[in-house]
Amino acid sequence: MLILIPFKPVNPKSRLSEILSDREREGLAKAMLLDVLDSLDGDVRIISTHPFNLEGYDVEVDERELDVAVNSRIEGETAVIMSDLPLINKKVVEEFFDTKGDVVIAPGRRGGTNMILIRDPRFKVSYHYCSFLKHVEIAKSLNLRVEIFDSFYASVDVDTPEDLLEILIHGRGKRSYVYLHSIGFRLKFEREPNILRM
Amino acid sequence: MLILIPFKPVNPKSRLSEILSDREREGLAKAMLLDVLDSLDGDVRIISTHPFNLEGYDVEVDERELDVAVNSRIEGETAVIMSDLPLINKKVVEEFFDTKGDVVIAPGRRGGTNMILIRDPRFKVSYHYCSFLKHVEIAKSLNLRVEIFDSFYASVDVDTPEDLLEILIHGRGKRSYVYLHSIGFRLKFEREPNILRM
Repeated sequence: MLILIPFKPVNPKSRLSEILSDREREGLAKAMLLDVLDSLDGDVRIISTHPFNLEGYDVEVDERELDVAVNSRIEGETAVIMSDLPLINKKVVEEFFDTKGDVVIAPGRRGGTNMILIRDPRFKVSYHYCSFLKHVEIAKSLNLRVEIFDSFYASVDVDTPEDLLEILIHGRGKRSYVYLHSIGFRLKFEREPNILRM
Repeated sequence: MLILIPFKPVNPKSRLSEILSDREREGLAKAMLLDVLDSLDGDVRIISTHPFNLEGYDVEVDERELDVAVNSRIEGETAVIMSDLPLINKKVVEEFFDTKGDVVIAPGRRGGTNMILIRDPRFKVSYHYCSFLKHVEIAKSLNLRVEIFDSFYASVDVDTPEDLLEILIHGRGKRSYVYLHSIGFRLKFEREPNILRM
């Protein structure tokens, strides 16, 4: 199986700019990518918007729009896994790959498609504007069987300061957890847990 | 197995008051409770903060604090399932009940414990201030084996307007989805999906 990981090494995670510097956002994005890579075996290709080196991994630079970059690479059985899923692990990914269906979707919050497994290359992705529902529709229009992969860990993608909370609560031992700790983030327990920067 | 469902029929879901009237919040809370009940078989007891009638169900009124009301009822194998999990279904709950471990926890966002299965009645719940980590700690202090149940559907509890989006995206056919539709809510597709009231 081919595994595609889209990645944006330059100015990533802009919605975190209120609490992280440019360099820190790049550091976190890379730590999350490494967490994702730690969860995967097999033919992994990182599709990067900008030149980016990562020892031991095949990085292909593609400046085109995300959908175009991904769709041009779908062949045979192809999985597309987002690079900002720090809580996934080998068990989650194995169960995902073992799920039957022509198209298997692991949803994220707010209508996202965090992981998708495509077993019929006629299927093409479309990541914007509630991609989850669009992917279900695209599959149905091709008479393909869609399965939803139900995982909390796969549902946590990191875009906002609130999402960092999930790393601090559930990510102990992950590289992104260690990174956040190294730049001063801790859990703060008030009425509700929140993040605190020391 | 005993299944406890804490419920607050009066002034529920106060964080939704910016977009829902009192009556609508009560309507949604009841619809979500029914979605949860639709997912369950067995000895279900609704623990209600106020008098509340629901045909076919055993409702016990308990005005005490949540932890006290729950802990006083733990006996043998006991599950506590929150009443605001509209996306769970029989399959999710069956897999949850089948998960091994002395204490099985299905996390919610922001450190919540959305479902918990207690197989050792020495364990007591503590729902406030990041209950997920507290429950893990309490179990470890008793040398109990904790398992995390990894489910997106179980992770979606409904507290904020943003959470309604998850019902509209993933809840087709659910009572809470039908209820939200009946009072005018629809999905709005802009750059990101959002809720719209007609």
